[in-house]
Amino acid sequence: MTTTDLAAYRAIFRRAPFIADVGFELEGLSPGECRTTLVVQPRHLQHTGQVHAGVMATMADHTAGAAAQTTLAQGQFAITAEFKMSLLRAARGERLSCVARVVKPGRQLVFVESEVFCDERNEPQLVAKLSATMAVVSAAVSS
Amino acid sequence: MTTTDLAAYRAIFRRAPFIADVGFELEGLSPGECRTTLVVQPRHLQHTGQVHAGVMATMADHTAGAAAQTTLAQGQFAITAEFKMSLLRAARGERLSCVARVVKPGRQLVFVESEVFCDERNEPQLVAKLSATMAVVSAAVSS
Amino acid sequence: MTTTDLAAYRAIFRRAPFIADVGFELEGLSPGECRTTLVVQPRHLQHTGQVHAGVMATMADHTAGAAAQTTLAQGQFAITAEFKMSLLRAARGERLSCVARVVKPGRQLVFVESEVFCDERNEPQLVAKLSATMAVVSAAVSS
Amino acid sequence: MTTTDLAAYRAIFRRAPFIADVGFELEGLSPGECRTTLVVQPRHLQHTGQVHAGVMATMADHTAGAAAQTTLAQGQFAITAEFKMSLLRAARGERLSCVARVVKPGRQLVFVESEVFCDERNEPQLVAKLSATMAVVSAAVSS
Repeated sequence: MTTTDLAAYRAIFRRAPFIADVGFELEGLSPGECRTTLVVQPRHLQHTGQVHAGVMATMADHTAGAAAQTTLAQGQFAITAEFKMSLLRAARGERLSCVARVVKPGRQLVFVESEVFCDERNEPQLVAKLSATMAVVSAAVSS
Repeated sequence: MTTTDLAAYRAIFRRAPFIADVGFELEGLSPGECRTTLVVQPRHLQHTGQVHAGVMATMADHTAGAAAQTTLAQGQFAITAEFKMSLLRAARGERLSCVARVVKPGRQLVFVESEVFCDERNEPQLVAKLSATMAVVSAAVSS
Repeated sequence: MTTTDLAAYRAIFRRAPFIADVGFELEGLSPGECRTTLVVQPRHLQHTGQVHAGVMATMADHTAGAAAQTTLAQGQFAITAEFKMSLLRAARGERLSCVARVVKPGRQLVFVESEVFCDERNEPQLVAKLSATMAVVSAAVSS
Repeated sequence: MTTTDLAAYRAIFRRAPFIADVGFELEGLSPGECRTTLVVQPRHLQHTGQVHAGVMATMADHTAGAAAQTTLAQGQFAITAEFKMSLLRAARGERLSCVARVVKPGRQLVFVESEVFCDERNEPQLVAKLSATMAVVSAAVSS
């Protein structure tokens, strides 16, 4: 993967308005893996003070999609068919980080898993896990 | 359920900052069921122009939590243990609506399902389904 | 669907050795829907006396696959990419029945849901639900 | 964990009639982890010749339950609330092995993941992954 590819992926990552709106940032990208972060703001919370599950699901799904994308040929796109999200612990902290890894690439389906960590006093704790099935579609279908 | 209860639930629904920030609104609430809506704005989209899966997951999960909450005693709270989200069709339209129904109430776990519809030219299409397991916790644990 | 088709599907259903071994039977088949039954025997149980989750998962998955198959063209096959199984109640009874329905057909993916009922004193109770994503493959890939 | 505990768990594992009937064997048990095996026989197959998803789901779920059980106090039992099973590759081989690990223990819920491997010419391949939520119940509820 060249620097040009990385820049291209970063641009794609930011081009999704909801991702930009919530504030997720691409941290790293390598074949089969993607890392993202989020500085937690009051607007990301549940009324109980913890990060809303929807914030973490959005992060875990989008990061998984980017990881899947790294395994595809040009003109192919990964779109989420389904995902399961397990909420292991309440996420209370100042920063979320997410790492997604392709478990099984494929021509038709790509299986990906994401882990979401929450920094509490600079110690990252695993707070959520996602398991997703991504469908591989050609540009014609996706746009 | 009295009007006071409904007002109380509406207030709880709006108290979650992320829900207010994305713009979801409580439409109706009855024992074991909750309905919500979202006026789709450009900031809710994927770069492909369809509604981001994270928006629909947030909506389906939060609506499911509110439906579960209607089955609980005072002082008990429903928190999401896990959910699975299936993305059936691309959601392109001006309005989302969601209905969540309790499949099986319980003292320890509540099983809930949500359906998300997208209005395209005033015709609602089923675009996503969620299946969630909610854990019942007492106030002491949740706060 | 002709009688010949039904007979063909029944034969396919029985051809799977594990399905025949556990004892599942095809009860009905129509476009997008499949129904199966199982006479519960002591060997199907958990040590607690209820039907093992694995029995119900096998039933719900295989019935879902048959339902998906009814939506496909000749030479195409539905294979399970993933499924989620929710175990709503302990299954204690003399007979299981399962109904699977296609939620969303497609050329690449078919979304299917199954419900498993357990007869206790002749009253069927919903004991489990499955949500599956089936991948559509051509004969060449599947064999 | 003493030898007595291990023997006790082995006995519990074999006491489930469906597990004994299909032929699963407990291979190892340590805090938060369980390993099982299955010698693949013709009766375990799909009509396509690969191991039936139901066999792997049963194995992954039961092994996960045993792993969860190791984290509980006496008189408490882990019962499956739900699980998701991803089928990554066709399983063709002479032997399955499964390892389940507790991702997050808890007083009310235990999150567990299982991996299923299939030996093809003595090389284990990851063929399936399970993610489960186990509910912790007291003896009174479970029996």
